[in-house]
Amino acid sequence: MTTTNSQHISQQFEQELQDIRSRVLTMGGLVEQQLDNALKSLKKSDMDLAKSVMEDDRLVNDLEMKIDEECIQIIALRQPTASDLRLVTVILKAITDLERVGDEAHNIAQQTLNLSEMMHAKKSYGELSTLGNHVKGLLRDALDAFARLDVEAALAVAREVQEADVEYESFMRTMLTYMMEDPRTISRVLDMMWSARALERIAAHTHNLCEYVIYLVEGKDVRHLSVEHIEKVLDRD
Amino acid sequence: MTTTNSQHISQQFEQELQDIRSRVLTMGGLVEQQLDNALKSLKKSDMDLAKSVMEDDRLVNDLEMKIDEECIQIIALRQPTASDLRLVTVILKAITDLERVGDEAHNIAQQTLNLSEMMHAKKSYGELSTLGNHVKGLLRDALDAFARLDVEAALAVAREVQEADVEYESFMRTMLTYMMEDPRTISRVLDMMWSARALERIAAHTHNLCEYVIYLVEGKDVRHLSVEHIEKVLDRD
Repeated sequence: MTTTNSQHISQQFEQELQDIRSRVLTMGGLVEQQLDNALKSLKKSDMDLAKSVMEDDRLVNDLEMKIDEECIQIIALRQPTASDLRLVTVILKAITDLERVGDEAHNIAQQTLNLSEMMHAKKSYGELSTLGNHVKGLLRDALDAFARLDVEAALAVAREVQEADVEYESFMRTMLTYMMEDPRTISRVLDMMWSARALERIAAHTHNLCEYVIYLVEGKDVRHLSVEHIEKVLDRD
Repeated sequence: MTTTNSQHISQQFEQELQDIRSRVLTMGGLVEQQLDNALKSLKKSDMDLAKSVMEDDRLVNDLEMKIDEECIQIIALRQPTASDLRLVTVILKAITDLERVGDEAHNIAQQTLNLSEMMHAKKSYGELSTLGNHVKGLLRDALDAFARLDVEAALAVAREVQEADVEYESFMRTMLTYMMEDPRTISRVLDMMWSARALERIAAHTHNLCEYVIYLVEGKDVRHLSVEHIEKVLDRD
């Protein structure tokens, strides 16, 4: 192969990796929008918006399958090694997380449909909205860290996910108290709990995105470690 | 390269793929055992057993990271194509599902620790055990279909996962009735609901395993399709 040819192929390959990364970010933007709309639909009891969140599933699923196929094509045709291979295998995993974030947004939208038939949904929503906005912000920041391959930003998000977990636990305890104080609220409060649970899952997927950034940049697999432990592994304090 | 050398490498590669598949099945057996023990711990209020389920997390996590690393090594060194590449990318995904099954078994074991402080846990467990045994059986059958690359068995499991979903919905409605009838049960019933939810998630991961078998054997990506739709795609009725 001539040098020009090989340069040409290498440029093409770089372009393919670039394309696939930007497609992952498109998918990220889509599920971020789904989450935003799901929370809005819950706040405003907007059933049409809730239905549109559920319909967006198809777009997210199609994108997941398309990116997956492209990753496999790249591995087969380009036979990437080292950091390029790491990128492709991380993308294979990250899109599964993103697809599940979309699923959880779908679950929240489903609660909107359930709750809209009931009265007094607003009070509980006020409390859920704090957690909802927090998790939404964390997802956005994690996608941003992923786009910029920014380890410090990823670490900051991972730390905040722990705080969101504490918020989640506290929300669940409050909901339990509501139920016990007024059993007529059981059904409604349960729906709020399912939404909170969906947010907790989204926070966990967000944490995974942060781990991928660290793996891509530092080459260290930090899954299943606490943030404190990760900081030690990375020599941060 | 001489033919003998190339044959030698090809045999080595076959052996590596075989090893990695058997390691996935070891991981499958481990999470199956975790689920079995988690359900047993719930039934017998056995806190020691529940704790051992939670400790097994580390084994499962280690195995996931080890297999993950091996897959990436195989891609980098062997540059697999076609069905070999499909197998490696499926394994990368399947171990994520298995790891999450382990997480959900951990969640069920956590409920054992919560429930053991309360009275009258046995009655609700009776109803959960039907769902628990069903899902446990499905996971075993899915792992078996994965081991034998048996599409018909995978389809049968996928169909049964739908039935387990119906059972789950019905269990949740029953639990809601209990809570409303006797608000003193709220806290205990909620714990049962979390365990049921964990079982529903395990059933969903089990369904994923079935999709991987179909993808490996038939080369068709059937994610996000209903079982009826999958059967049409495969020309089964």
